[in-house]
Amino acid sequence: MKLDERGLLIVLSGPSGVGKGTVREALFKMPGHDLVYSISMTTRQPRDGEVNGREYLFISRDEFQERIRQNKFLEYAEFVNNYYGTPFDTIEQQLSEGKEVVLEIEVNGALQVREKMKEAIFIFIAPPTMEDLYHRLRSRGTESPEIVEARCEKARREIELAYLYDYIVVNDTVENAADKVIAIIRAEHAKTERTIATYRKMFPKENNERK
Amino acid sequence: MKLDERGLLIVLSGPSGVGKGTVREALFKMPGHDLVYSISMTTRQPRDGEVNGREYLFISRDEFQERIRQNKFLEYAEFVNNYYGTPFDTIEQQLSEGKEVVLEIEVNGALQVREKMKEAIFIFIAPPTMEDLYHRLRSRGTESPEIVEARCEKARREIELAYLYDYIVVNDTVENAADKVIAIIRAEHAKTERTIATYRKMFPKENNERK
Repeated sequence: MKLDERGLLIVLSGPSGVGKGTVREALFKMPGHDLVYSISMTTRQPRDGEVNGREYLFISRDEFQERIRQNKFLEYAEFVNNYYGTPFDTIEQQLSEGKEVVLEIEVNGALQVREKMKEAIFIFIAPPTMEDLYHRLRSRGTESPEIVEARCEKARREIELAYLYDYIVVNDTVENAADKVIAIIRAEHAKTERTIATYRKMFPKENNERK
Repeated sequence: MKLDERGLLIVLSGPSGVGKGTVREALFKMPGHDLVYSISMTTRQPRDGEVNGREYLFISRDEFQERIRQNKFLEYAEFVNNYYGTPFDTIEQQLSEGKEVVLEIEVNGALQVREKMKEAIFIFIAPPTMEDLYHRLRSRGTESPEIVEARCEKARREIELAYLYDYIVVNDTVENAADKVIAIIRAEHAKTERTIATYRKMFPKENNERK
């Protein structure tokens, strides 16, 4: 029985390197939840193995800037000379169909979404320790030392912003973190503010008369 | 990894006959959760099969009124000439030990608890339909028709008060309802307001300096 039929916009965020992507992948493997992933657009080059339309929609800088002008992004950011953004187009439609839309975005982007979509659920994925985060950032090995250090610096600033989120989930194991996100989604659907309208339709005052 | 080490006070409530007791029993059969049940005190006579200290602590009317005077109840109520109350003594201790304390109480009692323990989680167990609730109240068969009708009347008033709770969980099946309550407990422990203090100890600003 669903008292809340609209989907939730779930914003998975957290510092660079915390493993947001692996948590999101684990989430989508869990049965019984109608999750959809909102694919971001970016102007950066695909990494080895990345496919257009799967990890990202890869578009040109000109196209991206045109979409900014048309206000077609729920959020966007520029980082290390590349744009990353969340197209607004499909999200509202998916939510109204009862799908849970998962965004996996950087901290700055999440704060932009908060401005535009107050109903969204903001989950900060935290590392078990700062050392763990540095280790992940340094061992990724696909970028230059300068970019790695820029990411560490960014992560230090991002880690301070957890207090702005609704929930903090520690990525100690990917399964634990994904389980907690699922629990959050289920609990949010049971919140009185989301369910009371349907509840009142189910139990109208006139039907409570003595039978 | 636990960012929130204090237990939660979970108030399971809802109209008479909705099946709060069976949801609570199912909850306690779920593995991996350190739940304790706060046993209520009552002045009513034990029903067949009820054991003192298991379903209720059965005490005399004089004892009950003495405990009211000493302010030893988190909440209490009188219904059909009998007192029912939740002793305050042990709850605070259990919460500080990290146990989740589950109260299963009437709607009036829940609203008293809200006054005294704002941090508690208030879950309204709702019937799938009003007819279902009437059916349960009438088929219990342990009380006179007058008492059954008094319960129906009370249930009609209680069903209106769901909006005062944090969550509404429909008892369509006991397993579904218990699953949702577990999800709520897990989600509440991840809430930023409960986790931020420990989080800040884990990631103090001085440790975020460049290493």
